[in-house]
Formats: sequence, structure tokens, C-alpha cells
Amino acid sequence: MGHAASIVVDWGTTSLKAALVGNDGEELDSLETPQGISSLGKGDHEAALMKAIAPWFSAHGALPVVALGMITSRNGWVEIPYVPCPAGSAELARGTVRMVLPNGSELVLLPGLTDPARRPFPDVMRGEETQVVGHGLDHDATVIIPGTHSKWAKVKAGRIKGFQTFVTGEIFALLLNHSFIARGATQPPVNDLEAYRWGLDEAKNSGAMLSLLFSARTGGLAGKLSADQLRSYVHGMVIGQEFRQAREAGWYSAGDEATIVGNDGLNDLYVIAAEVFGLGIAMGADDVLTRGAMDVLRQTLS
Amino acid sequence: MGHAASIVVDWGTTSLKAALVGNDGEELDSLETPQGISSLGKGDHEAALMKAIAPWFSAHGALPVVALGMITSRNGWVEIPYVPCPAGSAELARGTVRMVLPNGSELVLLPGLTDPARRPFPDVMRGEETQVVGHGLDHDATVIIPGTHSKWAKVKAGRIKGFQTFVTGEIFALLLNHSFIARGATQPPVNDLEAYRWGLDEAKNSGAMLSLLFSARTGGLAGKLSADQLRSYVHGMVIGQEFRQAREAGWYSAGDEATIVGNDGLNDLYVIAAEVFGLGIAMGADDVLTRGAMDVLRQTLS
Repeated sequence: MGHAASIVVDWGTTSLKAALVGNDGEELDSLETPQGISSLGKGDHEAALMKAIAPWFSAHGALPVVALGMITSRNGWVEIPYVPCPAGSAELARGTVRMVLPNGSELVLLPGLTDPARRPFPDVMRGEETQVVGHGLDHDATVIIPGTHSKWAKVKAGRIKGFQTFVTGEIFALLLNHSFIARGATQPPVNDLEAYRWGLDEAKNSGAMLSLLFSARTGGLAGKLSADQLRSYVHGMVIGQEFRQAREAGWYSAGDEATIVGNDGLNDLYVIAAEVFGLGIAMGADDVLTRGAMDVLRQTLS
Repeated sequence: MGHAASIVVDWGTTSLKAALVGNDGEELDSLETPQGISSLGKGDHEAALMKAIAPWFSAHGALPVVALGMITSRNGWVEIPYVPCPAGSAELARGTVRMVLPNGSELVLLPGLTDPARRPFPDVMRGEETQVVGHGLDHDATVIIPGTHSKWAKVKAGRIKGFQTFVTGEIFALLLNHSFIARGATQPPVNDLEAYRWGLDEAKNSGAMLSLLFSARTGGLAGKLSADQLRSYVHGMVIGQEFRQAREAGWYSAGDEATIVGNDGLNDLYVIAAEVFGLGIAMGADDVLTRGAMDVLRQTLS
């Protein structure tokens, strides 16, 4: 095992995830607590962080800590302005905020990214930009980060040129958990890849999303869609709409290639969706977040 | 006041609405109870109906009762098969089911309508077809019935030729009540027509619905959209997507005219949306449901 060199904290709305990182960027240990920013009040953050990573400080002494995600949002610890696109690790490094923790460790808070060209309002991300940096900015690429609010980003000439958010995961959760449309889906959830592909195909056939969603109900009435299939069918329709809308927004054409990074449990489903829409996929590495945080940290020191 | 001639019951998921109708089709009295089908078990329906309209039976003796809506669905009193499009009042009349109530009154249950041409599954309605009939089948028309599940229907050559459902109202409610996107909207709700038109304009500009919805959040972050504006802005985006998708599905072209019937409290908003999308609007009469029920009832007697 390598020597502990730093700690990377991915601090979001509902959880704090931390990784102990070695000299060569390898992950030596990891932890997760439910101390997301939504559970913390003003003034609680430092103590929550110190408590979470206390065992690592005890074992290895003071270490530089890099934190990113919603922790730097308006409802977080310190609000840091978004860095505008186009931006690479140097621009992100210039937007960092530095603090000193009670044990003398340096804390570097990373900024989020904004795309001022997006209409009607500038788009925003906090955390995903670090994943894109970790994937690498050396080669031009289209990067997809699946999630509650999926992001499609373009890497060009060594920087993140722009990006767009799709609220796919949130709409899926709303439909499954609160709608009449998907009422009747089997509990506990059943995942059915055939039904998922079916939903993707229907999204490929029709962009009338508000109408297509009703097929989750009419399919049941027609005896064509079972309660076991409903969840995956709806998931396919919604993720399919993301791929359809991303294509229409110019993120890709059939025959292009994109890279999926991040790991929100959705990557396999996104690979299937890409295949249905004729988009080739390369998978990013698992540790892009750590790599990106290290890249930006290095830039703050240079 | 005319002589009481019949009773029309619009019996849906969450309420039972009844009208006492005179000889000339005029509404003499009305009532509403929360005894929708979701609150009733098997075998409870007759008693609930008799209790609700007992005062009218007491005052006027036995009267023919026409009932329609979700009461004839799988979860209702008696499941009646959908009548397929194209259909007019004669076809709907052939699909009715007749019963005799304890006081000797005849009960005529009206069927719903299905459009077998709709993909991926036949579309369905229960109740709205009666409103379209009540609006009149003499002239070809495009009819819009705003609601939780809005319907666009085509009247052609004296029959309802086809229709399509858009789950606009349901998506709006999900976004407002359960989503992170619209979290922060002022409570109690504020209606802001300027923000509503803004949302419509953005929907006219972009069909990337999953992305556009995120502007409810980024508009707040950018300081462009206030908590007071959020609700109406989201409503405009969603209703605007319905008009955009209906246009793309061939329901109208700019410069056409359509008629809005029904009264779900949304008509004024739909008129504004139509204007933004270049669709002329005529308003249907308020009593189309009663008229339609009477039309179908007459056909069952002929």
C-alpha cells in the first residue's frame, strides 16, 4: 500500500464520501456518511468533516484535503462562484478557496462550473466538472455523466467547452414514486432489460414525451405491459428521451462516440441506450473523481 | 324552472358530481361529493349513488340517471369496454350498460372511448368523449380538453375520429409538489402571468424538455427567476411542451383553430398557450358534459 498523500471529499446533498489517496493517486481507503449538506446547519460543517476523517488524521497526521460538490453551493459550507466555460484544471484551480483545518491540514474547496452559453439561463454543475477533468482533457471528447441530473459535456482543446443538464433521473423517480401513470409497478422493483429496451425504442420513435408517458398506463390496460415490466419500460422511455433530446441539441450524431464517466449505478443502462441511438461508447475509469481532484490540486500548487 | 327530466353523474376517481337536468337540457341543480371510485369498495357504489341523489328522487320521483367517467373503468362499479374510434353518439349508445336502481329509476352507464390507431398502445378516455359529443359532431373540429391528462381530439364527418393524451397536468403537479427542480416555489402558490408566458416562450424555443426543466433551478441561481415566479414559469414550460408536441404530432399548424371544452380551471392558461403557438381558439359551452350525456341517452332510446 502506498503512502497516504491526501484526502478527497465528494460532499453532496445527501452524503459525504471520502477517499484516502496515495502518492500515485491510488485509493487506499474510503468511507461514506449520511452527513450531506441537507442534514447540516450553518457552522456544523467543519466538525462533521473532522469527525468523518478523524481516523485517517490519527493514522497519518495532517494531510491536504480536497472537497468538492454541493458543499461549495449556496446551501453548503462556503459558497464559491462557478468558474465559467471554457475551463480546464488551471481555470478551476484559480477558483478554489483554501482554509486551514483545526489540525493544521490544508482544505482546498473546488469550484463548480457554469456554461454561460446555455439558454435560457447559464447551466451549472458542482462535482461533475472534476470527473471530466479526471477523465482527461488531452483529447477532444463528448462525456456523459449519468445521474439524477445527467450532464453531457464537451472537451475541446484541453478545456471543458460547454455542457448541458438533463433531469432524467429526477423525472424517473417522480414518475415511479408519485405518479398515477406508473402506479401499479411491482414492489420491490423488478428490472427487466427487455422492457427497458422497449421503452428506449418508443422514445426513439416519438419525441412527444408528455404523450408517450401515458403509454405506461395504456400498455397495462391493453394487457401488453405487466406490472413487472412497468418500471423498466418507464426508465427506457425517460432515458431514451434524454438521448433523443441530446442528439437534437447537437451533442452527437449517429455513428459518433462518447465516454461515460462516473458511477451512479446507471452506466449499463446508458450503454444500452447509446447503442439504440447509434452512439458508440467508451467507458471512463472508475477513479476519475480522485484523478480530477488531484489534477486541480496540483494546479493550485503550480 | 323547467321540469326535472334526468340526472347526469360525472363519477371520477376522486369525486362524484351530479346535475339535475330539465326537459330542455338545462341544469336545475347540482351537487358534488368526495365519493369518487378510489374511496369506494366493491358493492358500495349503488348505495353511494342513491345517497348522493336521494334529495332529487324524493322531490321528483324516479328519473333516468346517466353516469360516466371512471365509474365504468376496471376499478369502478361495472367495467364497460371502450368503444373504438371513429365513434359518434350512436356508437357510444350501443356501448352503454343499463341497470335498474332500487327506486325503479333506470341507470345508463356510458362507455369510454379508445383510439386503436395510437402508438405504442391504444389511447383511452372515459368522460371526455361525452364532452366532445356535447360540443357537437356536426362540424369538423379539433377539440382540446385541458386537465391532469389533457386530450386532443379530432371531430370529422360526424364522429370522433381519434385522440391523443398528454399527461401535462400530472407532470406539473409532480414537479411542483415533489421535485428538487421546483423546490423553492412560494407557498401559498402565486400565479404570475408574465412568468407563465416566459415559460411558454422557452418551450416554444426548445423541445429538450428534460433539459429545459432544469432552467427552473438555474433561473433562480442566476437571480433571474424569483420564488414567486417559479410556479407559473414551470406551468408555462410544461403546457408549452404540450402545445409543441401536439403540433409536431399533427394536431394543428400555426393559423389553425381549435376549440377548448371542459372546465378544469385551466382554460385561460390554455388560451394564452394557444396564442403563443399561433393556434386560434374558440371556447366551447360550459354544459357540454350534460349535452353530450343527453345526446347519447337519446340515442339509446332511438
